[in-house]
Order: sequence, then C-alpha cells, then structure tokens
Amino acid sequence: MSEIQYPLRTRAEEFFRKMQDEITAALEILDGGEKFFQETWERPGGGGGRTRIMQEGAIFEKAGVNFSAVHGESPESILNSEQKLTFFATGISLVLHPRSPKIPTVHANFRYFEQSNGQAWFGGGMDLTPYYLDEEDAVHFHRTLKTSCDKHDPFHYPRFKKWCDEYFFIKHRAETRGIGGIFFDNLSANDVREQGNVFAFVQDAAHSFLPAYIPIVEKHKDEHFTESEKHWQLLRRGRYVEFNLVYDRGTRFGLETNGRTESILMSLPTVARWEYDVHPAIGSPEVRLVEVLQHPREWAV
Amino acid sequence: MSEIQYPLRTRAEEFFRKMQDEITAALEILDGGEKFFQETWERPGGGGGRTRIMQEGAIFEKAGVNFSAVHGESPESILNSEQKLTFFATGISLVLHPRSPKIPTVHANFRYFEQSNGQAWFGGGMDLTPYYLDEEDAVHFHRTLKTSCDKHDPFHYPRFKKWCDEYFFIKHRAETRGIGGIFFDNLSANDVREQGNVFAFVQDAAHSFLPAYIPIVEKHKDEHFTESEKHWQLLRRGRYVEFNLVYDRGTRFGLETNGRTESILMSLPTVARWEYDVHPAIGSPEVRLVEVLQHPREWAV
Repeated sequence: MSEIQYPLRTRAEEFFRKMQDEITAALEILDGGEKFFQETWERPGGGGGRTRIMQEGAIFEKAGVNFSAVHGESPESILNSEQKLTFFATGISLVLHPRSPKIPTVHANFRYFEQSNGQAWFGGGMDLTPYYLDEEDAVHFHRTLKTSCDKHDPFHYPRFKKWCDEYFFIKHRAETRGIGGIFFDNLSANDVREQGNVFAFVQDAAHSFLPAYIPIVEKHKDEHFTESEKHWQLLRRGRYVEFNLVYDRGTRFGLETNGRTESILMSLPTVARWEYDVHPAIGSPEVRLVEVLQHPREWAV
Repeated sequence: MSEIQYPLRTRAEEFFRKMQDEITAALEILDGGEKFFQETWERPGGGGGRTRIMQEGAIFEKAGVNFSAVHGESPESILNSEQKLTFFATGISLVLHPRSPKIPTVHANFRYFEQSNGQAWFGGGMDLTPYYLDEEDAVHFHRTLKTSCDKHDPFHYPRFKKWCDEYFFIKHRAETRGIGGIFFDNLSANDVREQGNVFAFVQDAAHSFLPAYIPIVEKHKDEHFTESEKHWQLLRRGRYVEFNLVYDRGTRFGLETNGRTESILMSLPTVARWEYDVHPAIGSPEVRLVEVLQHPREWAV
C-alpha cells in the first residue's frame, strides 16, 4: 500500500537542496549585515554543487553552507582498482565561524551515499565549538538534538553523542574539538523500511539545526568581548584547523580524491593563531573550557 | 689506518646540538630585538630535546629551532608489531616566520636515524617560502645550496632540488609550498666509507643554512610593506599550514606517534588566514609568485 515515490536519491537530493535554502535564508536574517554569495560548480566526473559563502558579516566572520549532488566512478574504485562501481552522493555541509568569541562555532553535515552494488546509507551530525563554556547553551544544544533523536529511537542520542565525542577528538591535543553534539555514519538505507526510517530521522535531525543553534547566537550576539577573549578565540580556531586538516575524514578524503578544494576548505576560519605552549591561568574561563574538552560531559540527561 | 672515533650517532648528535647553538646565536644577533627561550624535554620512551622559540621578535614573528636526540622502540615496531627493533634518532629542525611579507619564511631540517638491525641513514634539506618573488634571492639561495652539494657529488644538487619540489607540493592546490631548495632522505650510512661521505655532506649542507638565508633577511629587513602585502602573507601562510598538517611526513608521523606536539607544531605561523577562493589581479606580484609555485624553475644553472 505504499505510495508511488521518487527514488530515495532524488528525495534526498531535493531535501538537502531545500535545507540549504532554508538555512541560508535564516542565517541572512540572523546576520542582518551580509548576504551569502553562491558559486555553482560542476564535478568533472559527474554532478556538482552550490557553494554559498558569507564573509565579514555582522555576526559571521565566515559562513559556508554547501550543497552537492555528485556521481561517477566509486571512490573505492579510484583508490583500489579491484572493483568497478559507480556512486551517487548528495549532502549539505555547513560551518559557521562567528566574529565574537562569545558565540560558538558550529558545524553540521548530512549526507546520503549509494553505490551500484546496492549499498546505500546516510551519515551526518552536528557539533558545537564554544570558545567560552556556557553550560546553558550546551544543555540547550544537546537537548534539542536529543529530542529529535528520541522521536525515532531512544538509543540514537546516547549512541550518536558518544560517537561525536570520539570522532571530533584531537588526538595530539588529548581534547575534543568542542562540546560535541551527534555524529552518525553508515546508517543503512538498503531496504524500503530502513529507507523510510533513516531518511525520516535524518530529516528531523537536519531540521533541528536552526532551533539548536539560533537561540545561542541570539543570546550572545550583543555581548561585549575583550581583545584577550578574541585572542583566545583565534588560538582555539588553530585547534579547529588542526582537527580539520589532520583528522577530519571528509576533508582528507576530499583533498585526496581531487574534490573541490575551495568548497572543502570553506570550513577553515578566516583567521587562526598558533603560539608556543599556551597555558591560561588556573581557574580562568579559558581553563574551564579546556577541562570540558578533556573530559566530555553528558549535557542532556 | 682510520683514526679512533666516537660512533657516528654520538658525532651526529654533537654536531646537531652545536648547529642549534650556532644558528640560534646568529638569529638572535640578526633579530636584535628578542631572544630565544629554551625548553628542555624528555621523551617518555627515551631521550629528549631542546626546543628553542622566539616569538614577537623585531624581525621574526615566530622562530623555532629544535634539537632532539631520542631512542626507544622503533616506530616500525610501534605501527606494526612484527619485528621488535630499537632506534636512535637525532636532528635539528627549524622554521622561521618573519613579520615582514618581504622576507621569506624558511625551513631547514637535518637528521640521523639508526636502527638495531644495522640500518642507518641521514635525511634533511631546506626550502624557502617567499611571499613576493625576488629572483635574485631565489638564485642566491639555490646557488649557495648547489655549492655545498657540488663539493660532494655533482648529482646531489639536481637530484635533491627536484626531490624538494616534489616533496613540498600541495597537491590539492597544485602548487609547491615555496621556491624549493634541497630535500634528501634515506642517505645510507651503513658502512664506514658511506658514513664519512654522507656525514661530511650533511655537515656542509647544514653549514650552508646561515649563508643561504641571512643575506636575504638583511636585504629586505628594512623594506616598507603595506597592509595588503601583509594580508597576502597571511593567506599564503594558510597554505603553509595546509602543507604541514595535510602532507608533511615529519609532522604527521610525529602527531601519530605521540611526539611532543608543541615542538612539532612550532612550525605553524603565529597568524594565518583563509578566505574563499582568492584570485589576485592578473599581472600582480602576487600572481607572479603563484606562477612560480605552479611551475617550479631552475634557479642555479
């Protein structure tokens, strides 16, 4: 008794394209100063995308919201010539770097992947990277995500929260990139029941991005900050760069497989700093942040 | 009829330690404003090092000159439990980031490695990363290196110059990190004749660092620069960060094997920038630099 539907790949692509429109429209209203500009691009091997960037906004120093739908010879085939497969991948990926150190950086990514051998899956998540810890923000962000997860499976949030802490871990610093969120990958969408369930979950998770993040921006956007707080933000952004270039699988895979470099590296902040062996004063707000990055907490219990 | 000598590892360690002293002394005189501070550290698995850092000098925004001599279980044994070997490694590694965009960034590294299976080799090199191309500088730098190579083997310079262009290549940008220099690795030092020849070459190459670089600093240190030239420097430093974190084998190996993070990442500039898809004006000095990075030239012919 199922309705006649377009194939999952078409529905996923349409959904991610719409998400990009919704999110960039909301962020332009929020920022109030600057608009996104768009570059559409084509992938030589097949497909393409819409990269949307805002730079030097009133709130966002740099914001990138990418949509892509690409297809071609499977990456596995490129890296290992054994099997010849084709793939289709579509998704949305965003990173927002606010100007103020009082507003956290945020990243979200949702993607669908299928291969000519019949394998299909979703992946994604979102995570928050504050420069100063506001526990209320952390609770709000995680509770919003938990609510969207709980509608689908009570095990989703605990599992994906843990996965997020593990994934966004900067091994050589022995700390997480931020205070986490959710991360999931390889959520199978091979049969019809799985497809419906997983796609519905991914849609709800993606829809939770704006309600999870916007109130945090609204709360802090008019807060004063000092030169030394800005300085701390730039040092922490150095860690963000370290994670993305050293560990992030999407970034490294994209760079290794001739992805579109400018779209991949839109995730990097406008400015980052590195100084030798910085240790903020014991008991300072800077140290309180680092303690939480060294010992991830449960925020939505 | 050979003289009684200390083992190569001892002589190499002593040489690199002295080089650190010589180079930091010369750089302090050159800078005139700031001194190096030193941190000595011990490696939990065996050995240690002396990290010397200058920050916010008159000429050098950040300068790191590291010496280390470490030993323990071989990295191969750590990454692959098949064979249990011990190793000894000693070397000097330096990166100098000048404040002025008119003065190139420079990197040099010389190292000796031996393993309990009898394998021993030297590696190293140095390369120049200008923000604006000065052809006279490029010729001077390369000719100085060529002269020190030619004393040992006429094939050294052409081989190591090419190796350098290939090694310091940022694949995802399709450009080299800078205008090159020399790079060599696995120069065997297994038997007595090889040991003498290779160590003598490494000593000469290391001794060529100051004469290769200091005249370039002297020439440009009082040159005026504009805000927009500084801005270009910060964008190019972003590429330096990309190379070091994405490709540099020493950096990645160090981070993966629990090396001393702060000593490894002293190579990163104090400040770096990333903007979306920057294209300097056709015919500008910025574009002239990029053209050379895209098409490495012969500078010492």
